[in-house]
This record gives sequence, structure tokens and C-alpha cells, in this order.
Amino acid sequence: MPYGYTGKILRIDLNSKKVTIDTNDEVWYRTYWGGAAMAAWYMLKEMEAGIDPLGPDNMLLFMNSPIVGAPLPGLSRMVVCAKSPLTGGFGESQAGGFWAPELKKAGWDGLIITGKADSPMYLMIKDDQIEFKDAGHLWGLETAEAQTKIREENGDDRIRVAQIGPSGEKMVRFSSIVNDLNHVAGRTGLGAVMGSKNLRAIAVRGTQDIQIKDPEVVKEKAKWFAQNFMDNPQGRDLHLIGTSVFVAPQNELGILPTKNFCDGSFEGADSISGETMTETILKKREGCYACPVRCKRVVAIEEGPYKVDPTYGGPEYETLGALGCYLQISDLAAVAKGAEMCNKYGLDTISTGGVLAFAMECYEKGILTKEDTDGIEMTWGNGAALVEMIEKINKREGFGDILAEGSMRAAKKIGKGAEKYAIHVKGQEVPAHEPRGKGMLGITYSVSELGAEHTRVEHDTDFDFTAPEIWLEQAKSLGLLRRLPTETIDEDKVRMYYYLQHHFSMLDVLGCCLFTFAPVRTFTMADLVDMTSAITGWETSLWELMKAGERRWNMARAFNIREGFTKDDDWLPERLFEPLQTGALKGKGIIKSELREAIDLYYQMCNWTEDAVPTKAKLVELDLKWISDKMGEYVINGKKLRESGNIPHL
Amino acid sequence: MPYGYTGKILRIDLNSKKVTIDTNDEVWYRTYWGGAAMAAWYMLKEMEAGIDPLGPDNMLLFMNSPIVGAPLPGLSRMVVCAKSPLTGGFGESQAGGFWAPELKKAGWDGLIITGKADSPMYLMIKDDQIEFKDAGHLWGLETAEAQTKIREENGDDRIRVAQIGPSGEKMVRFSSIVNDLNHVAGRTGLGAVMGSKNLRAIAVRGTQDIQIKDPEVVKEKAKWFAQNFMDNPQGRDLHLIGTSVFVAPQNELGILPTKNFCDGSFEGADSISGETMTETILKKREGCYACPVRCKRVVAIEEGPYKVDPTYGGPEYETLGALGCYLQISDLAAVAKGAEMCNKYGLDTISTGGVLAFAMECYEKGILTKEDTDGIEMTWGNGAALVEMIEKINKREGFGDILAEGSMRAAKKIGKGAEKYAIHVKGQEVPAHEPRGKGMLGITYSVSELGAEHTRVEHDTDFDFTAPEIWLEQAKSLGLLRRLPTETIDEDKVRMYYYLQHHFSMLDVLGCCLFTFAPVRTFTMADLVDMTSAITGWETSLWELMKAGERRWNMARAFNIREGFTKDDDWLPERLFEPLQTGALKGKGIIKSELREAIDLYYQMCNWTEDAVPTKAKLVELDLKWISDKMGEYVINGKKLRESGNIPHL
Repeated sequence: MPYGYTGKILRIDLNSKKVTIDTNDEVWYRTYWGGAAMAAWYMLKEMEAGIDPLGPDNMLLFMNSPIVGAPLPGLSRMVVCAKSPLTGGFGESQAGGFWAPELKKAGWDGLIITGKADSPMYLMIKDDQIEFKDAGHLWGLETAEAQTKIREENGDDRIRVAQIGPSGEKMVRFSSIVNDLNHVAGRTGLGAVMGSKNLRAIAVRGTQDIQIKDPEVVKEKAKWFAQNFMDNPQGRDLHLIGTSVFVAPQNELGILPTKNFCDGSFEGADSISGETMTETILKKREGCYACPVRCKRVVAIEEGPYKVDPTYGGPEYETLGALGCYLQISDLAAVAKGAEMCNKYGLDTISTGGVLAFAMECYEKGILTKEDTDGIEMTWGNGAALVEMIEKINKREGFGDILAEGSMRAAKKIGKGAEKYAIHVKGQEVPAHEPRGKGMLGITYSVSELGAEHTRVEHDTDFDFTAPEIWLEQAKSLGLLRRLPTETIDEDKVRMYYYLQHHFSMLDVLGCCLFTFAPVRTFTMADLVDMTSAITGWETSLWELMKAGERRWNMARAFNIREGFTKDDDWLPERLFEPLQTGALKGKGIIKSELREAIDLYYQMCNWTEDAVPTKAKLVELDLKWISDKMGEYVINGKKLRESGNIPHL
Repeated sequence: MPYGYTGKILRIDLNSKKVTIDTNDEVWYRTYWGGAAMAAWYMLKEMEAGIDPLGPDNMLLFMNSPIVGAPLPGLSRMVVCAKSPLTGGFGESQAGGFWAPELKKAGWDGLIITGKADSPMYLMIKDDQIEFKDAGHLWGLETAEAQTKIREENGDDRIRVAQIGPSGEKMVRFSSIVNDLNHVAGRTGLGAVMGSKNLRAIAVRGTQDIQIKDPEVVKEKAKWFAQNFMDNPQGRDLHLIGTSVFVAPQNELGILPTKNFCDGSFEGADSISGETMTETILKKREGCYACPVRCKRVVAIEEGPYKVDPTYGGPEYETLGALGCYLQISDLAAVAKGAEMCNKYGLDTISTGGVLAFAMECYEKGILTKEDTDGIEMTWGNGAALVEMIEKINKREGFGDILAEGSMRAAKKIGKGAEKYAIHVKGQEVPAHEPRGKGMLGITYSVSELGAEHTRVEHDTDFDFTAPEIWLEQAKSLGLLRRLPTETIDEDKVRMYYYLQHHFSMLDVLGCCLFTFAPVRTFTMADLVDMTSAITGWETSLWELMKAGERRWNMARAFNIREGFTKDDDWLPERLFEPLQTGALKGKGIIKSELREAIDLYYQMCNWTEDAVPTKAKLVELDLKWISDKMGEYVINGKKLRESGNIPHL
């Protein structure tokens, strides 16, 4: 197995401070490929059901794929998995940057971290030298300070650091893992898992070459991409404006989630749009390993109430949505400040916006008062409240300690009907994409094993305002030959969702950036297959890779079933069935019966039982017979599946 | 739609002698692609359930694909479909040669023939000129004579003729459609359908260029193939020895069906092996359009009791098996004579061998006597009986008229327990591949919608005696990463079958020859995708194409359900559960419980109900909602499916 991957996974046990190496064969790598599929394999095999996500029995896994790290745009993703402290189910989050390729250059396809350190520490991985280092002096530091210290004390500026911030140390349930200060694996609260292990950072330095079977193909593809991505409308937009380019058109189309998902448009949208940001506070563009798109922003504000440090980059679309629109804050400086704080402290911006929006609506409804909120006026549009409350969440101080639990748990604690205003699925706050205007999102938010998440389908291209022709042309090779009306949730939409889910899950497994590979982006499906073959020397196909994507979500589903999730967890918060109060889609709510039918059809399309359990046939088909062999022992509604009588062939 | 296909299908109604043209759009072509999927679309939409396959309401369809006719090895397949007079279900048969590319050059993606001519006629298609021509003078002629006359009377030697022979005229239920005299679409009795329509031949001459988007890629692939196929063990064998190369090793492995499937080896195998044929009666090698493999044989015998005319080519492996081993005839001359007669008269050699073996076993058991068989001694190994009885079948004369109905119907007519010796599935005789030694074949013979057929999986490579490493390397891109023991019928085998079925069905839909494209052959999956994209200008993928393959068999399954087939029809003849009497696998029979479990798991893997009905979800997923919309009206076991209560979501 000489090409494209090392074949070595590093196991680090924090209890014993022992390091071991797992080698797996080609069949294993070509079955699981990378990312969450590799992680799920370990989590299903080695993690006990029902463990405390914030206890020492949780595992924290960073998984590459055989193609991560090859010098091509979009092969830079850091994939982190663990049992989620936010949802209690399968946790996964991804970020770009430079850390994952560095890990590959150090010779590792992945890290498996188990146990808990006695005291704060960090890991220093230089090729095959692994050091357990004291992190007492880093504890409580902002992320930039910690990164600087790590680089200084190891005498190497080229060290890449994936770390938590103070929020993660305090196990805020939606804390993130940050690499290079502005590449953030934010979702499902995996920073809290790292914090629970007393692990502040994983510093990596790799000096080895990444083996590539056919470097000429890689060079050609990279060159072609660099020459052509600006001719693709979405490539150009991502470079010029960044992900925030979506603020303005989504507002116009009435699908910009506003005021805790009451509204579909935001009056202040223009003042926090990507265009405005570009014209005012943008200082430069940054990017990821080997990628010319440079969709990351660097913003700075030197004056006024909200000074923003460019060290932490700048806000993405999701951040503008969650910290801006969700809260009706139209002051770009306040939103940018909130974004900076989230990166500095290690918080997921989507869930941060989500819990704050929840708090503001409770405040409006009188469920919370100034006394509950430590004197902070949690009123819509209040930028100062945003900043002050993030500070409190980070410190788990006063009311911030309640919000640090995430909106689902906070609502339970607050009571008085607050749960109505916690807009989450499976405990995870809903991202800034509006399912009432993007039908597929209604399905994906419901059924995703990670709780509400927006990266499981090409959601904005079922509305697709930028490049419909390119989208359709690329989607055809996925078997999607027609565009569909956007808002609908019907049988055709289920089909489209099912196929796109294969595709996006495949990209996640391979550690590919959605912005270079998904439909509408510059690389096509054929490019992905060609480059995967060129890197690995394995002649692969879109069939093989799509099946790897399907395998991943079936494994995550099995994990969740083992943790006690049922089909009842696959459903949306009540808010999304209510009519939108403003915007082009004013009056539109999701129709429950339509969603119910769609989800049931989706289960059947997945070849799952009507209780949303993968059938034995599906698991055998995906070469996951070892899961079906165990599944009979899983308990649903107090009964072992084997005894429930409705699991064919189990 | 400028490239790779014409976008035009020709409809010819023999009742009214009217010709019309169907144009379908790109979405239609990219959904159904070609071959049996396109045919099934028409058959499900336009044919009534329950019609007589030999009546005027049957449709006879010849379907190309967007890549058939491009100058590349293996893109020459003529695909014929109709309701089968042998099985009563979906009928399909394929042959190589030159006719299908000629039809493409004439500007046609397919022919749909309906109705019945008042009197014998043939069609002369020259580009867009369609003539209905009298065939009174051709009626009763051997195929070579008829072809010569057609070419002469139309003054063009380059006319390609697909025709039936006298057997088809007489509606022998296993008669074939022959092109160029030795390319035979033999299975499921479609020659009888053509005969029932009084249509002796379809003569085609095309003078147009086939549009190819990227001719350079096509040229390169063709050149590469020509330079490399002889380095592939199977390519070399097919060229040097032909398909008959399989006789010797299959005999050695005990999987050469002998004596009506009683035995697994044949003492006389050496004398009818490919090697012997090559050394003795082979005169030259011939091939198909644009293919350098030239796996077709031309044999001649000028002396002795069995003179063989080289005009009709020479026997394939299946023919040697069916006319030789099935009957224990070790006289190569007799077998070659039988082969020549089948091509001359238009008979399927497999079913011909099958009915004769059935008769011989009945004769041995005393169920038939010399009086029943018009004085012919139907004894094992009797070459003269072979020749005489083919003569009688062709003329439907005496006992030949009974055998002309196929073994299932003949056995019913004969009674006295004869049914036990009729080795067929769904009425079609079993090919010369032994499921007791090739586990996947036990599944495929059972569940295939066409009845017993051997081209739905890479059956000989699950035993794979020639190139196991190449097979595995190519199968990996299908998601098959491990070789499996050959004889087993278990869960892993079902998975392998399911994936290979996608692959082979895809090749069938595209009109690709299995010998250039299937695993172990010279072109890889990646080559197929690349050339399909290059020809059509559509950037396709193995995912899209595998799904087209899956679509085809689900459509054929829907057709059969509509015709009243149930899961009870998916089963093997009793003989195959009996122990093999001779050979390396002596004593081995298929275990019923294993086959039952495998088939049930297969249904579930297909996302079908336990009654083997495609679920709505599967049909929606394959973009076949229009079938699921109608399926509720289909009747199974006297009940409409909609009322049966066990069809989820119907």
C-alpha cells in the first residue's frame, strides 16, 4: 500500500500515556475510506453504549482519508468525531485549514484519543515522535495566545495547532475545535469532549512527503482549477465575497432565518451582507492548504465599541446569520466581534447564535427577565448583549452557565414553556438555512444523525440562485436529471435528497471541501474520481465512493440506535411548521403530513424498517454485516431489536 | 442532443404498414439509456397485460444505446425484446455482429415493431427510407439463402440482415434472431415472435456518420485495446480458442453440465474442447464490428457423415455444452453439425440442447419410446439423433412438434412424470454453467426475470480459473474487495451477486459486449465511463450507469409481476438440488434452505417486499414513479397489490 495514505493510525491513551499504532489493510481503507466512516468503525467496535460523552470513556477521533493532504484544492479537511455532548448521539465536525494535511505529512491517517489526562496537557506530534506536554500554562488562554506559546516553546513556527479554547476547557456543550485560529470544527460540541479529557491542543509537525501515485494528474488538476475557478460563478463569489455572499440573495428570497426563525427576511441584512463586509472591514482573504479560492475572510475593526482583532479571521455566512439575523443585530461590528470571540474562545457560532436567539425570544415573551440574565437586556438587535453574553457563556458565569448547556437543556432548566423557543433537532441548534424555503432541508434537519445540520445536501442549490445550469450539468452524473421546485417536500424531493446525501456524505468521508467539489463548484464528480485514482493508485469509481458515503450515514445511524435514538427523534422543532412572519415566503410553514410522508419514504428508500433501523440486507450490502450481527442486541423502546419482531432477517 | 445518438426511434406497424418516429429528450435517454430499459419503457406503457406472445398484440423491439456503433470493441450489440413465448414474461436477447451499428448509421436508436403482416414480408431500412417488402420467396429458406437473396435483390452487398429462419416462421418457441448468419440472439424465443408477425427479416443499410463528441478519446481507447487485449489472459484465450476455451477447465473443475445436468464432468470433453476444435476443424476467426478480439469461430467439415458449412461460423461454448455435454455426444463433427443447423434454421442452441437432453432422459427412463420419437433412438451420445431431431423441430414434424414447444410445455404434454427431467426456470432451459459449482448462478438462475440465463453475473469468475488477480482489481471499483469461495450461497454471495448484477445489467443496457467490458476483460469500468462520456458528450459516472442497470431489471420485474409471476417462479428445477453424479464436485447439490435464505435476502437487498415486488421507495428512487403508480392495479394471487396490504406505501 505505497500510495496516497500511510496505512497507520495513531492511538493515544491519556490515562496511561501509552501510544500504539493501528495498521489496517487496503480492504479496510477501501471500505471505510476516511473521516466519520473510519471513526464510526472504531466507535461502534470499542465504545460502550450509554457512556457519558464528557467522561473518560468517550473517544475523540481525528480521521484523514487516503486523499487528504494531496496538493489539490479542497483536500484539507480535518474531521473530528466523538459521542456528542450536545446530542448524545454520533458527533462529527469538520474544518479546512492546514492541520489535517500536516497530520498526513507526519505519517498519520488518524488519531484515536482515549481516556482522560490527570491534568491539562497538550500533544506534540512531530512525525513519529509523540510527546505528552503539560498545558497548565495554556489553560484559560485565548486560542491565539496558546498557539503562539506552543510554537515558541517547541521552536517551530510551522507547527499546526488544533485546539480548544476556554469554552472547551469549561465543557460548554457547543464548544469547538479550532485549527490555525480561524478554521473551526464547530458542530456537535466536540470541543467539550476534548476539554473533558484535559486536552487543550494537538500540535502537529510533519516533514514527510505524501506519496502520490501519479503526481502529473494531480499537478494538472491543480493547475486547471487555479485557472478556472474564477469562471465559475460560485468560485468567483466565494473568492471575492466569501460564504457571506449568500446573505443578500437569501434575504431577497425570504429564506434568511431571522428572529429565532420567526422571520424569513431581515431588514438589516444589507448592513451585514458580504458585499458590505467586503467594502468596509475586510482586510484580506485567506484560504486553506493548496487552495486558490481563499474563501476565508480577515476583518479588522480598530475603533468604536467593537474592536475586532484580524488574528481570528472573519465571519462566515453561518456566523452572520446566527449572530446577526437570528438576533436581528444589524451592526456589522457587533456581529464581527461576536465571531472573533467565538474563535478566540472556541465556540460554535451557529449554536451560540441559536442559544442567544432562544434567550432573546424567552426574554421578549417574559419567560426570562433581566434578573434571570444577570442584568443583561436580551432584546432583539442588542449587539452589546451578544458580546456580554458570549463572555458569560465562555466563563460559564451566571446565566451564561445555563446557556452553555445548549438551548435544549437550557429550556428544560428554565421551564415555563421555554422549550417552544429552543430551535434545535436532537439538541443541536438549527443552522442559518431555512427549510420552509428549501424543501430538502426539512428532511435533512429531521433525519440527520448529527441533529440539525446543513452540510448533508446541496441545500442552497435546490434554490440555486447562482448557477443553475452548472448545478444541473454536474448533478446529472449523480442521476439527477431535472431541477425541482425548491420549496416542495415530496417524493421527487426525497429521491433528490437521497442521492445528494450519498454525494455529500462521500465528500465528508473523503475529507473533501464542499466548496471545491459539490455540484455548482469547480471540480466535477469525474475530477474527484480521477484524482482519487491518481493519488491512491486504486482505480476507483463514483459507485464505489458513493457507497462509502452511504456506509458512513448507516454507521452513524446504527450508533444512534445503540444510544437509544428512535424515529421520534427525526423531527423538526414546532417553529418550522409555523408560517414565516416576513419576507417573500411570508405565511409559509412546513406541512406536517408532507414531512411525515417524506421521512417515511426516505426510511424505505434507505432500506430501513419503518422504525428507521437499517435492515440486515442494507447492512450486508454495505459490507457491514458485523453491525447487523450486533444490532439485535440494541434496545429500542425498552425492547431488544431482536425481540421486536419487526426487523426483517435480523 | 448532437452527439452519440440520434434521438430517433422508428415505429413500424405491420398491420397498417405505417411508419412513425418517436423523439425523446436527453432526460429520457439518460434515464433509460438503451437496450432492455428503453424496451421495457415501451412494453410497460403500451403493451396490455396478458396478451398472447405469439399474437399481433406483442411488440418486438430492437434497441440501441447512445454508445452502440461507436468504433470501439464491444459496442456492437443488437438487443431484442418482446414478451417471451417461452416464459410468458419479459423476453430479451442480445447478439454482437454488425447489424446494430448499421442501424445506428441509418440514424436509428431503435425499432418498435407492432402488429402482424398479412403475408410474409421483410423490412428494408436504408437510412430514413423504409420499405415493406414481400418475403414470400424467402419463406422456408435457410438463413444464408435468404440473406443472399435480400442483398442481391436490393443490389447492395453491405446490407446487414437480422432474420429468423424456418424455425422462427414455424414459431418454434426457442427460435432465434440471427444477424450475419452467426450472431445469434437466441434466448427467450424472440424468433418466434418475429415469425408470428410474418416478418422474416429486417435488412438495414446506413450511410450516415455516427456523431462522436470526442473522437480522439475513442481512437485512443480503440488503439490501446488492440495493443493490449492479447496481454489479458481472457482476451488471448477468447481470440485463440474462442468461448469454447471454457470446456476443458470446467470439466476439470466438475462444473461442466453433462447428461441433462446429472453429471458435472464429461468423459468426452476433450474431444469437443476448444483446443481440439482449434486443432482440427477451425478454418478462421471472425469477429464483430470494430473488435480485434475475433472470438467467433469458423469451422468446416468436408467429409464424413456430418458435413459442416463454414458459412454459419462455428460453435460457441454454450453450444458445445448444450449439444455436446448435455447429450453426452463426444463426436465434434455431430456437435458442429448441430450448431450449423441451429444457425441455419434459427434456433437457440442452449434450449435446443436442453429439450433434446430432456427427451434423452425421458427415453432412458422409459417415459418415451421409439414409437413416441418417430423411430429415432434418443439415446445418450447419439449424434445422429441430434441431427435428425433438430430437423424435426425445425419442421415441427412429428415428435419435433412437441419438442418445439420447449421442455416445460413438452413435459406437460408427455406427462408420466416427464416434468422432472425438464431442466428449466420459468420455462427457459438452463445454460451450460453449473450452479452447484458456481454459487451466484443458483441465485441468478432463480431470480432472473428472463428465466434461466447466464449473463447476469460474471459467473465463471466467481470460480475464476483464468485471471483472478485482474478480476479482483477490476471488481474493486464495483465495491467488491474480496474474492469469495465459489460454491457457497450465503450472505456475502448475495451481496456480490447484487453488485455484479448492477454491473452486467448496465452493460446490457448500454449494448456492451461482456467479453470486452466485464471484470477480467480488457476494458475497465473507468474505460467504460470515459468512453461513454467521450461519445455522448455527457459527463457520466459509474454511479449513473450502474443505476441504469438496476432500473432495467426492476422494470423487467414489474413487467413479470403484471403478467402474474410471483416469487414462487423464482426457484430452481429439482435436478439442481440433487447431488452431482460425476466429477470433482461429485455428491454436491444445492441446499434448499441456503438458496431460500439467499433469495429472500436478495429481495430485501433489492428493496422489494418479501413477495418480490419492488417497493414504491425503490421505484421512486429509480425515477420509476410512473410504474409504482400503476403497480397497485397489478394482480398477484388473485388480489390487486393495492389490496394485499403488504406493499409498503403503495
